[in-house]
This record gives sequence, C-alpha cells and structure tokens, in this order.
Amino acid sequence: MATETLTAERILAATEDVLRLYGPSKATVVDVARALGVSHGSVYRHFRTKAALREAVTKRWLDRTTGELRQIVEDSSATAEDRLRRWNVHLFEAKRAKAGADPQLFATYEVLLRENSETVDEHIADLVGQLTEILQAGLSEGTFTLGSADVPAGARAVFDATVRFHDPVYAAQWVLPDIERELAAVLDLVLNGLRVRA
Amino acid sequence: MATETLTAERILAATEDVLRLYGPSKATVVDVARALGVSHGSVYRHFRTKAALREAVTKRWLDRTTGELRQIVEDSSATAEDRLRRWNVHLFEAKRAKAGADPQLFATYEVLLRENSETVDEHIADLVGQLTEILQAGLSEGTFTLGSADVPAGARAVFDATVRFHDPVYAAQWVLPDIERELAAVLDLVLNGLRVRA
Repeated sequence: MATETLTAERILAATEDVLRLYGPSKATVVDVARALGVSHGSVYRHFRTKAALREAVTKRWLDRTTGELRQIVEDSSATAEDRLRRWNVHLFEAKRAKAGADPQLFATYEVLLRENSETVDEHIADLVGQLTEILQAGLSEGTFTLGSADVPAGARAVFDATVRFHDPVYAAQWVLPDIERELAAVLDLVLNGLRVRA
Repeated sequence: MATETLTAERILAATEDVLRLYGPSKATVVDVARALGVSHGSVYRHFRTKAALREAVTKRWLDRTTGELRQIVEDSSATAEDRLRRWNVHLFEAKRAKAGADPQLFATYEVLLRENSETVDEHIADLVGQLTEILQAGLSEGTFTLGSADVPAGARAVFDATVRFHDPVYAAQWVLPDIERELAAVLDLVLNGLRVRA
C-alpha cells in the first residue's frame, strides 16, 4: 500500500474509516498511518495537526451533502418554490441519515460545533448561499417577494426558521413520529411568507 | 422564622435564593431548610424529593414569564399581528434576561431540559397554547389565514420557526450583535406567511 502515492484524499478516506471505527475521542493519527501502511510522519506532512485532519475530514463529509443540495439549487426545470421545499426536505433527511447511520462522524461534527470551528461556519455559509440562489431565482421568476429585506438576509431568515430540522442539537427529535409533518408545516408557513399572492 | 407557617410558597422562594447562591449541582435541601430555620424533614413534608423541589421552583420561575406574556395575549386593544410580534420579542428578551442575569436558575432549567422533565413539556405547551389564542384572534379578525392547517398546528409551526430565539440551547447566540435584526427578519417572514393579502 505504501508504494501508492500518499495523497490528501487517501489520508482523508482512511481517517473517515478510522473515525467510524473508534470515534472522535479515541481515533489517533497513528491509527490512520497504520491503516495506510505509512509512518505517522507521512500523515503529518499533509495535515500538520490531529485537529487539522479532523477539520478536513468533517469538511469532506459535509461537502457531500452540499454537493447533493447543489443539484436541487441548479434544477432549472423546477420552480423556485418546488426547489426550496425539496432543498429543505433533502437537508433534513441527509442530516437525519448522518446522525442515525453515521454516528461516529456525526459525533466528530458535534465536537467541531462545540469548538466554533471555521469548517462549521463555512458549511453554514454554503447552505445560506444556496438558499440565496433559490430566493434569487424566485424573485427573477416573479413568484417570490421579500418586502424590504435584501436577498441574503431573507435566505438567513429561511435558514433560521427551519433550524429545528437541520441543527445537530435537535438530532434526538428527528426520530419523533410528528417531525416530518412539523417540517412540512414550517415550510408551508415560510413559503406562504415568500410567495407573491394577489 | 420557624414560627411563621411553612407554606410551599415560602419553601420555593427560599429554594430560589439558595439555587442562586450555590447553583443546581451544589444546592441541597439542608441549605433550604437552614435558610428557613426549619428541619429538612419539614421541607420534605411539602416536597417529597430534591428533584420535585427543583421542578417546582423552575416551574414557578418559568410561570413568571408566561404570566407576562399572557398580558400581551389578552391585550384586545392591539391587532393579532401586533400581539404576535410583541409576544415573540418579549419571549426572546425574557429568556435572554434569564440566561444573562439569572445564570444559576437558568442552569437549573437546563438540567430539567436534559432530563425531558414534565415541567419543560408543560412550559412549551403553555407557550404554544398562548400562540394558538393569538392565531385564533387573527382568524376572527380576518387578518390571518392558515390555509389547510388547524390552529394548534399553525401555532406549533410559529413556535418551531422562532426556536433559535427562545430555546436555551441557543443562549450563547443571544448576545451576538445581529440577533435582534435576525429575529425581526424571521418574524417578518412568519407574519407575511400568516397575513391575509390581496
């Protein structure tokens, strides 16, 4: 294995596997190096600290979700309203799946949340940025109105209004029987607030 | 002091003071009894366990806020829209004040939140009940519409959409410089969603 070029991507893939096995408190850089058949010094040449490696692997894991969501943002065959609803439902389902099926990486993400990491700030900025694009599409269509709010502030308000369905602090509530109906009710209210009527 | 009748109310007032001094992890029933000049057995005759006493004192502390909010609910000189906005702003300011100026009782409340206590469930039910009354007032006035949602579900959606501004898990964000503007933006969106237009 050590004969293959040691890329950052290979290190991140191995780190993800190691985190899945041992969790954020027990996984070490030595475990990652052993899984790759290299010295831990080789890993440190790509990621200078354990914290930097943890940030990078979480970013990669979060970026998979924003990549999926981007396809919804760019689906110009759908109305902005349809895209906004599907985007929020997909975000909710992706976060719930991560919390349920990938608990060790979710726990790693929660460690970063408690540390106010830049990775988390960037993830939130990515999400609000995608919402901004959908709102902009609705304004261009003439189906959305924002009153006196600017588009990024309107996108932030939509993000804030749905926080119960994507902020990891609520993960325990995502398995309750009414949660999907409650998300749909909030989305009805939000979309009614955005929609041009009359 | 022991010659005064030992009422539940006197015990709760003393417990609140003791919690303020020592916090939820260090305060004991013996401290409460000493503050009242009675035996701890006398306290246990009113509250059978330390947990029951902690629940009761937190309920009394939370009920002060719902009492203030009730005056807004019942202010029939104001429109439903005006009441809904003032109610949410008051709830936010009251929670922020409790988190900032009353940290030991806020910490007690957080203990109950982690334990999924009945007191917390009742507090949330009280708040959603008050929102239901305001929405009902708006429907009667003819200024609010809920589409196909029933009134309690609509009230729950309003409560969920504003959760960033009243759930104690977000207390650290309530001192950020943009927080009031962000609450106003969510309330604009929610009220736009409720308002009859056209």
